[in-house]
Amino acid sequence: MEIKALVFKDKQLKLTERPQPVPGEDEVLIQVKLAGICNTDLEIMDGYLGFEGIPGHEFVGRVIYDPEAEFTGQRVVGSINISCYECFTCNQGLSNHCLNMRALGIRNKDGAFAEYLTLPRENIYPLPEVVTDKMAVFIEPMAAAVEIPEKVHLRPTDEVVVLGDGKLGLLTAQVFWAMGFDVKVIGKHQEKLQIVKKLGIETFLPGELNRMVDVVVECTGSQSGVETALKIVRPEGKIVLKTTTVEKPSLDLSQVAVNEIKIIGSRCGPFAPTLRLLERHKFPLEEMIDSIFPLERGLAAFTRAKEKGVLKVLLEIS
Amino acid sequence: MEIKALVFKDKQLKLTERPQPVPGEDEVLIQVKLAGICNTDLEIMDGYLGFEGIPGHEFVGRVIYDPEAEFTGQRVVGSINISCYECFTCNQGLSNHCLNMRALGIRNKDGAFAEYLTLPRENIYPLPEVVTDKMAVFIEPMAAAVEIPEKVHLRPTDEVVVLGDGKLGLLTAQVFWAMGFDVKVIGKHQEKLQIVKKLGIETFLPGELNRMVDVVVECTGSQSGVETALKIVRPEGKIVLKTTTVEKPSLDLSQVAVNEIKIIGSRCGPFAPTLRLLERHKFPLEEMIDSIFPLERGLAAFTRAKEKGVLKVLLEIS
Repeated sequence: MEIKALVFKDKQLKLTERPQPVPGEDEVLIQVKLAGICNTDLEIMDGYLGFEGIPGHEFVGRVIYDPEAEFTGQRVVGSINISCYECFTCNQGLSNHCLNMRALGIRNKDGAFAEYLTLPRENIYPLPEVVTDKMAVFIEPMAAAVEIPEKVHLRPTDEVVVLGDGKLGLLTAQVFWAMGFDVKVIGKHQEKLQIVKKLGIETFLPGELNRMVDVVVECTGSQSGVETALKIVRPEGKIVLKTTTVEKPSLDLSQVAVNEIKIIGSRCGPFAPTLRLLERHKFPLEEMIDSIFPLERGLAAFTRAKEKGVLKVLLEIS
Repeated sequence: MEIKALVFKDKQLKLTERPQPVPGEDEVLIQVKLAGICNTDLEIMDGYLGFEGIPGHEFVGRVIYDPEAEFTGQRVVGSINISCYECFTCNQGLSNHCLNMRALGIRNKDGAFAEYLTLPRENIYPLPEVVTDKMAVFIEPMAAAVEIPEKVHLRPTDEVVVLGDGKLGLLTAQVFWAMGFDVKVIGKHQEKLQIVKKLGIETFLPGELNRMVDVVVECTGSQSGVETALKIVRPEGKIVLKTTTVEKPSLDLSQVAVNEIKIIGSRCGPFAPTLRLLERHKFPLEEMIDSIFPLERGLAAFTRAKEKGVLKVLLEIS
């Protein structure tokens, strides 16, 4: 059977037909309902990681086939990293940093911008009814926000500033808000800041916050973000790095040493606690959706997603 | 002016009249609206800390006089510890462990079971309208729950068990629930467990949970609680100690050493993040109220609070 898919090959994204993927051992087959375009997908179009195939890693879908039958028919999301469990880091218990890591729609694994995808059973999380498709499609990037308190001890009395009002910045602010933290956001776009302002979160335009805080989470997506973070983090404070850029910014590491700053890298996060937060609290996720395109108009969706300052663009697939 | 107060003196609690307290330098005068009876108050009746005077440290009231006028007329809560800022620990930045600590209704400071009380300005927290009096009276014990993530790095992926379904156990479970944690409660009273069960929290009767978890919070109020905690904490796991008992339980410290367990003591907590949680989420606090007595019937209130298994008993004062 042929399925419709967006395929990136020879530096070009095309809507084309592909054979339906065949689940490997311990894998499920999922019919994709809704998928989100992430900045990483845009970077892939620019050659990031040299990926060729079907991109897309933020999705919600329905399990069509499960060898164990447990998930069959269920509405699910899936975590994107697939570890080998055989390499050095996997043997050290660091399977999140598997040396042979495959990642849905990012590295050696076809992704979610297609009618069907496959994923290992262990990556699958069934959705409670209260979590709608439009909420569920945010779980993957939201989990990246939950990874911050997973890796860094954030104290309820810490003053935390999120740098950047892009998708990850806004999601991080929402997660921290739900957890009760004293979170503020610095961003350039009043209309985006408005989304978290409605929750009671204080927001600032660049340069407006002129004092030191305990923790800065760098989500600007820009290479100059760390420098801004260094300007407002207190001595012995923490900077959490979320931004990945192709460029290598030059950095005042002496200041890091002298002021005894901790810089902590952080990437993908855990789905289970993210789902719990979504079940327990209301988040203004739908306000973060810019537009929804059918898969057939996938190229137009990418064009829209590439426009400056655009929030989440979704693909409705089935 | 004379005010009505419950006074503990010569091992007896009496309803009596006292001169209206005079605020010290930098202190406000508060008219108490509602106050809660805590287990510590019951322990004071048994001679705990040798306190004599007006007990009571959980309260909500209105500021009648503020030397700076800022809080005048405002509905407030107040943190209970008053540090000297001169002793060794205060000078080390550990004013929460002041060697000359006074504590509202507990140590060298008359408390809340009276029509008026005084507190330093720095202890005062104005209440947003959304936080009702009946919610606000829980802020002090709830802050003790917030103190746990303040002192211990709880990871969103940790499995956390709260031991005990008393007031502090149930409040801790609610705070952890709001923060998105995977929290379970072990308790003896189905009707109390029901309060947190409704939030979707899994509960167990003693002996029902037979596997190891990452973190155990000991809130049983009983000297045997730590032993139970040691039975279910995993190697390299954490036990947070909330219980204080006059008895000194004997403890298998070899197991602590061999299994590399961390035991972490934790006491009073920060009000500001607790208030944020109360503003942002709904908690079933009113279900934790057993009964409300007028101040005049304070002795009956204490009798009720002393009964086994009773939840929060409140005094309505003005």
